[in-house]
Order: sequence, then structure tokens, then C-alpha cells
Amino acid sequence: MPIRVTVWNEFRHEKSHEAVKKVYPKGMHITLKGALEKLLGDQVKVGTATLDEPDHGLSEKVLKNTDVMLWWGHMAHGEVKDEIAAKVAQRVREGMALIVLHSGHISKPFVKLMGTTGFLKWREAAEKERLWNVMPGHPITAGLAKDYIELPHEEMYGEHFDIPTPDELIFVSWFEGGEVFRSGCVWRRGAGRVFYFRPGHETFPTYHNAEVQQVIANAVKYLAPTAGAVPFRNSCPNVKESLSPIVGEHEVDETLHKR
Amino acid sequence: MPIRVTVWNEFRHEKSHEAVKKVYPKGMHITLKGALEKLLGDQVKVGTATLDEPDHGLSEKVLKNTDVMLWWGHMAHGEVKDEIAAKVAQRVREGMALIVLHSGHISKPFVKLMGTTGFLKWREAAEKERLWNVMPGHPITAGLAKDYIELPHEEMYGEHFDIPTPDELIFVSWFEGGEVFRSGCVWRRGAGRVFYFRPGHETFPTYHNAEVQQVIANAVKYLAPTAGAVPFRNSCPNVKESLSPIVGEHEVDETLHKR
Amino acid sequence: MPIRVTVWNEFRHEKSHEAVKKVYPKGMHITLKGALEKLLGDQVKVGTATLDEPDHGLSEKVLKNTDVMLWWGHMAHGEVKDEIAAKVAQRVREGMALIVLHSGHISKPFVKLMGTTGFLKWREAAEKERLWNVMPGHPITAGLAKDYIELPHEEMYGEHFDIPTPDELIFVSWFEGGEVFRSGCVWRRGAGRVFYFRPGHETFPTYHNAEVQQVIANAVKYLAPTAGAVPFRNSCPNVKESLSPIVGEHEVDETLHKR
Amino acid sequence: MPIRVTVWNEFRHEKSHEAVKKVYPKGMHITLKGALEKLLGDQVKVGTATLDEPDHGLSEKVLKNTDVMLWWGHMAHGEVKDEIAAKVAQRVREGMALIVLHSGHISKPFVKLMGTTGFLKWREAAEKERLWNVMPGHPITAGLAKDYIELPHEEMYGEHFDIPTPDELIFVSWFEGGEVFRSGCVWRRGAGRVFYFRPGHETFPTYHNAEVQQVIANAVKYLAPTAGAVPFRNSCPNVKESLSPIVGEHEVDETLHKR
Repeated sequence: MPIRVTVWNEFRHEKSHEAVKKVYPKGMHITLKGALEKLLGDQVKVGTATLDEPDHGLSEKVLKNTDVMLWWGHMAHGEVKDEIAAKVAQRVREGMALIVLHSGHISKPFVKLMGTTGFLKWREAAEKERLWNVMPGHPITAGLAKDYIELPHEEMYGEHFDIPTPDELIFVSWFEGGEVFRSGCVWRRGAGRVFYFRPGHETFPTYHNAEVQQVIANAVKYLAPTAGAVPFRNSCPNVKESLSPIVGEHEVDETLHKR
Repeated sequence: MPIRVTVWNEFRHEKSHEAVKKVYPKGMHITLKGALEKLLGDQVKVGTATLDEPDHGLSEKVLKNTDVMLWWGHMAHGEVKDEIAAKVAQRVREGMALIVLHSGHISKPFVKLMGTTGFLKWREAAEKERLWNVMPGHPITAGLAKDYIELPHEEMYGEHFDIPTPDELIFVSWFEGGEVFRSGCVWRRGAGRVFYFRPGHETFPTYHNAEVQQVIANAVKYLAPTAGAVPFRNSCPNVKESLSPIVGEHEVDETLHKR
Repeated sequence: MPIRVTVWNEFRHEKSHEAVKKVYPKGMHITLKGALEKLLGDQVKVGTATLDEPDHGLSEKVLKNTDVMLWWGHMAHGEVKDEIAAKVAQRVREGMALIVLHSGHISKPFVKLMGTTGFLKWREAAEKERLWNVMPGHPITAGLAKDYIELPHEEMYGEHFDIPTPDELIFVSWFEGGEVFRSGCVWRRGAGRVFYFRPGHETFPTYHNAEVQQVIANAVKYLAPTAGAVPFRNSCPNVKESLSPIVGEHEVDETLHKR
Repeated sequence: MPIRVTVWNEFRHEKSHEAVKKVYPKGMHITLKGALEKLLGDQVKVGTATLDEPDHGLSEKVLKNTDVMLWWGHMAHGEVKDEIAAKVAQRVREGMALIVLHSGHISKPFVKLMGTTGFLKWREAAEKERLWNVMPGHPITAGLAKDYIELPHEEMYGEHFDIPTPDELIFVSWFEGGEVFRSGCVWRRGAGRVFYFRPGHETFPTYHNAEVQQVIANAVKYLAPTAGAVPFRNSCPNVKESLSPIVGEHEVDETLHKR
């Protein structure tokens, strides 16, 4: 069974900004889809969805049939419907993986799942970024030639990045202009996981970079749900029958639990 | 400077249910306020707020002047205004501490800060609970006679408890009927912290228990903001001037950042 | 390429205690080997090693060719040579996985890797244990019928269990006699990982239990090293050439670094 | 009651290297002692100990009467007696705090407590270091003017730093030459805590820097043991009497537990 991936892209910059169109003529989602298909072949089945489609391309059916979702958004976070963002977040709790890219740090699904603002410092100065690996042996690093990825030109994102403590901190970025950033982080939410991966400013050819593509492909495999694992329970059940005997008086007022 | 505490209580059960009124005649918040004043004296200045006051008693002024907030709610989570819950959550990010008690596991501020559902199993059968300490030396355990707190009768809460990985797991509960529960957990959010503490079903005299009171008083001291610490930055600033020199071409399209 | 597993067993109780011999006539390692081969088939190649073999069966060659090691010891922890224990620990840092079972909580390799004592409370009273899952969706839980595993008779291990904060806490045990225990924990060390799994007292048929076997088989797959991941660097290199230019005066006294 | 601090210093470079003697004429320990006394006054009682004293200045009495120990060593890690290092580590588990400075990353007590090698990359090129705060609101940052500390000249330490996942990651360093480093980390071990703080190369006046002094003073206060907290239990007791009744057959062979 292939991993079912949906690449979600805001897909606005590619239409409105010449510089971006030049880098991603068909849209970032098509570039990312192509990279995943090239690197993972039969292991994945990749679809795409974009902001301006009905329901942002994220119908119930699409959501239900997605194992791993990629999310790139920037200028139009506010146009994502709260209801759709809530459904994406809930699907993560139920087991779907969400790979949040770059400016998705303040996207609605990410912020909902983190409980933090996602705020950071930034500077667009085409500066050098080095993503240092701080977790050797991690599956997400498979195939990297060195213990860092170097990108000649990227937008800077600097700490403090307002996120909860990551369950796994895999990359920390160095920027030429003087800042650092936790740029590869994994969190569990319910039965699913979120991977935030920093690089990908729209005017740079970052998603054409072979190592960036490799990390994203690795993440798809790493985060995909495990068949048969103990499932998420989306309820607060009253388990009236105890598993082991309870000794002693029981004075229970049922009316208290009519929430 | 005393720690400024606000005890927030839904304060409904105490008015509508005789059994609860008997245990907390003036409301749980008054019992908790009294306990904090007794145990911490001059170290605290304690106020209260309840659901049915205007803005649930949580005006801008109250929020701004609160270092540590306690939160007990149960039957009326849905009546808490989204706007107020959002402000409470934001105050935590800015440095306020939030102590979420018992049925607050699905309260709006808690769920917003966690990014999870807060769902759990429950059973009301007046069974025995033992809260085992799994983190010796922790300040929240000061004054406990043993390495566990025993409560003769409590409502059961059982795993899976849908929370993010705690930054600190301090207590794990054993229940007579066969379940376990992560019952004392701390998370950082922004510059503030959240402490979830499980016990406190409304029909049992749990908040009259000296050890439960001690833990809550310890938590107030432990979680209170530190004067002069690096503050939360509630923005995404563009830091155009780099701290260190950036070498190489800079082609920046300012129009991309008009979010 | 199959995962190369080595099941290490102290293999003393099975020879000296009739009750144990009855449960594991050929030794626990043979039972565990059989379970892994039955559940994982071609995915694994399983060898065994025991205390009384030369070098405890853990020659350089065996260590080098092991991806995942299981470790069961109890009465003879002190007989394991420090040198061998150190090599096992170092292999973990280099990427090998170590699955520490039951009374291995104070085995030399585990204690060396944790930096803690591994101390706990215990009671042998053939009591009921329930291992509750607290991390839904985790690969180690694949194939479990419920959100807990129930063992009718086990030795009790109780908190405080002296371990560092687990990177992943997957199971928490409930014991009939009143205690709880963090019974399924994962930690990273260097490029490798350690999984501590609690059940397995020698007089009970725990390693014949299908769900216990399933968890161990899942762990083998989950923890096995990833080919091509960024490797562990077993040195403190002096990287004299900087990646980016350093501006300013450099007065370096080389004699300081003759350690 | 003042916090009882012992500043441990290898105290060799200051005697053998002119450049170091110039910076710390009486030894680094005296500089650090003075800084703590200046910043914390009556809140601390500070003693010192050095490698060449009997038992490295760490008699049973000194160890027993130390709440917080600072550790600086570099060229003579191997001369620290294993027995003394083991006692220091054990005192941490019992509740003492250990602040490991700079080249202490491969000191015996640190490595014993971490279970990792402490290996890292390094370069001595008098380059700029910026320690970025990644945890706003943390008590260790009290009094810092900015969200980073800038040191004009330091030795570089680069990732991968072989440490377990920190319980708290407070500072991440940026180095002029292109590397990053997790430079302020806290871990719990038993009832005590370890704080690793990176800066402090012996030829630079780092411990005269007001902000570095402030962080160390803050750490002393933050990590000091809490009176009356649940203590570390340095044993594996057999708790024969259960707290709750155990139903069913009990066949226990006492001879199995003669370890």
C-alpha cells in the first residue's frame, strides 16, 4: 500500500509574482509532487490541493484518504477557512502526518496544533543558511552527504521561534547575518505527528535542491501512520464497568455529568 | 512583591447541586483562595473570578495583573467566551502561569494552549486514587509526607489522555478500578507555563485535602513568572539590519511580504 | 537486508531454578529468538549470546554485526565484564538499538547509557499488571487488540524508577497491589536508541505471551538503524578551517589543546 | 539558609600558561566565586576546590555540604579519580546541582551522568559567539539586556554535540565561522539537575563578562535543591506488603531474588 500524500499549496505567489513564477512555473506543489514521485516511486501516491479550489481542495474525502499532508502558505493564511483548518488539525490527531514548510509557521493548522503563536524574526537578504544536524542516525537525515545542508540564499528566520518543546529537534540553522533557528522539529499530537521544516522561501529555488527534497521525502516515510497501531480515541467515554474490583461505598450523582 | 493569583471557578455546581454545596458552601474558589492564603501568607495576593461575572471576571485589568491563574470548570465549558479564553491563553504565552484543575482538561484555555483535545476516559465510582511521584526533588512536591498522595474517593480519569508530551511529568495516578493517568504535568507555552493537576471532583472534599492544597500552593510558587527574564515577543519583526555582515548579492522583492 | 538481531540472555535461572526451567526449557533467549523469527520472518536474522560464553558471546565481530540487541539479565549483573558493557553502550551510540528487558533495569549497559541508577521498588506477589498505552499511533503498538496489555501474574515494579526523562513514554503499568510504573520508554543515545520494556519475570510465561512478543518484534523494526542516516562521529575534531569567514584578530595558543 | 556552592576548578592552565594567568591570576574559581558573591550576596555561601588538593578538594564532608557545584576542567580530565567522579555524580542523583562549564563537556562527572560521550567539534580562532535565547521567561535569563549574549572572542564548539535530549534547551550559539551549538541545557538526574553552559575558554576573559556571570548566578538559584521535596531513594526495596489487596494465587520463590 503506497503512502497517500497530499501536497497543499497556497499557490498565489506563483501567479502574482514574476520572480516566483520563474522558479516554480507550475506552482510549488507540482515541484514537490514531482520530487516525491522521483524519490519514492511506488512507495507513494501523491495528490495536490490549493487554496483557491473549493474547500481549498480539502474535501472530507481527500482528508480521509491522506496519510501525509504537506503545507505551504504565506500571503493568504487568513483566507484559509477556520473550519477546514480545524479538520486538518483533527486529522493529525487521528493519525495523519502534517509537514509544515517554511512560512507555514503561522498557518492556521500549525498554530492550532501547537498552541503557540509560531512567531519568529525574519529578514529577506538572500543570505547563506546552514542546517546543522543535531540528531545523528535520524531517519529524516538518510542520504545526506554531510552533517549539514548548505543553502546559498534563503530568507532568514531567527529565534525566538514560538513553538512548544519539540519531541525531536533534528536541524538547527545558522544564518550568515547572525541568527540561529530550530529548523527541523517533530511533535506528536494525538496519534499523528507534525514536522516543521524551515527552508523554502518562494523566490529561491529551495525545493529544487536535492537535499531539501531528500529530507521531505524521508519525512513522508518517517511520519506515515503505522497500520494497526493503537488508534486515537476521539471521545471522552464513561467506562462504568471497572476492570478491577472497587471496594467501598459508591455515592454517585449522575446529574453532575450532564455536560 | 507578592505573587498575584486569580482563582477562576465556573461556580455552578455549588449553586445547583446539594452534594457539592455541602462540600464547598461558598464555592471552590473560596476554598482554594483560603488554602493559598493559609499556606503562602504574604507571598501571595489572591483574587477570584467566576463564570457568571461580566467577562467571566476576567477583565483586561484582571488579566494584566495576574501572575498565576487557577482554572476549575466542568459543566459549562461551552459558555466561556472564545474571546476570553483566547486572552487567557495569550497571557500564558506572555508569561502568566495557568494551573488547570481536574475537569479543566477540556476547558477552552487548556485545549487552545495544548493543541490537543484533552480527551480521556472517566468513571464516577468513588474509588481510591494514588498519585505517585515520578520526579523526586521537584519543587512541586515540597512538604509531601510520602512519595504518593492517597485520596480515598475520587472520580477516575484514565489514559489515553490526549495531551502533548509534558515538559515535566511529576505525578502518575493509580486507580482502584484498574486505570492509570498522567495526573501532574507541566508544559511551557511562550514565556509562561501550564500545570495540569488531576484531582478535584466536585462531590469529594479533595480541595480540603492538605496535600492537594500543598501541591497547588507549591505550583503557584514554582510557576510564577521570573522578574527580568527575557520577555515573550508578541510579533514577527523584520530585522532588516543583520548583526553580522552578509556577503554576496541581495535581490529582495519587498512586495512579497505584504501579508 | 534483514535486521541483524542478537538476543543476549544471562541464562542462569533457567539452569539453576526448576520453576524457570519449566517455563523456558532451552532458555529465554531461545523463546525470544523463536518469537522474532515467527513474527518477522525474513525481515530479521536472529542470533543469541549468553553470559557464560567467552566474552559473554559478544565478540567484536558479533557486536559489529548487530543492528538490534535484546538484553535480559538478573542475578549476575555483576559478572558482566565492564569492558564488554562499555562496548555494548558504545555500539548503541554508534547506531545499534538496545532493547532492555525487565530486570535489565540495573544491568551495566543500561545504567551506563542512562547515567542514572535504574533503581525501583519491587514485589514478587504474582499480581495483575496492565500496561496502558499512553502514545496512540506509535509503531511499537502495532497489532495490539486493545489500548492495554493485561498480564495475569507479574512481578511488581514501582515508581520512582530512576531513569532520565524518556524521549518517548509509550506504556505505563498499573499493578494490582497499588503501584504504577513507566514500563515502555525510548531514549536516544548518540545515533542509537534504547527501549526499556518492563515485563518478563523469569517464573512467569511472559515471553510466551503473544502481545508481549508483538511489542518486542515491533520494537526491533522501530529501532533498527536507518541506512545512510547522518552517522555518529566518535571524536572531537579540531575543524581549523572555518566554513564562513572569521573577521578580526586571532591569537591562538596551540599548546593549550594538548589534552 | 544560604545556598552552599562549591566552585571546582582544574586550576592547571592558570599556573602553566601565561596567557591564562593574565586573565585569571588567582584561578578561574576565584573569579567565579567573587562573581557569585557579588551577585548573590547572602543568598550563597561559596567555597572552592581544585584538582591538586587531596581528593581534588572533594571530601565526603565537602560533597555532603554542597547544594550546587560548578565544574571547570580541560587538560587533566583523566587525572580526576574515577571514585571521586562517581561520588559527584551520585550526589547529583541525590539532589545536588552540577553546573558544567565549557570544556567540562568531556569531564568524568558529566559523561557519567549523561551516558553519552560529550563529543563535539571545536576550533580556536577567537571568533564571535552569540548565545541566542530559545526559551523566553526562563529564570536563568533574568537580567539579560537582550535575547542574546554576544561574546567577541570565544573558542568554537560545533554540533553534533553528543548529549541526550535536554530537558530544557535555553541557549543555542551562533559562531562566526559557520557552526551552531546547544550551549545552555538542563537535564534531571535522580533528584538533582545538571546545567551545561558552553562559554569559558581559558584564554578569553569570558568569566569576567557580566552577562555570563549573571547566567551562572541565575543557574545557582534555579538549580538549588528544594527543601522538603520528595527525596531520591538510593535503593531497590522489596515492598512485600501491598498497599491494595492482591487477589489470587501467589507462588513466590524467594531464592530468585538473591542477587
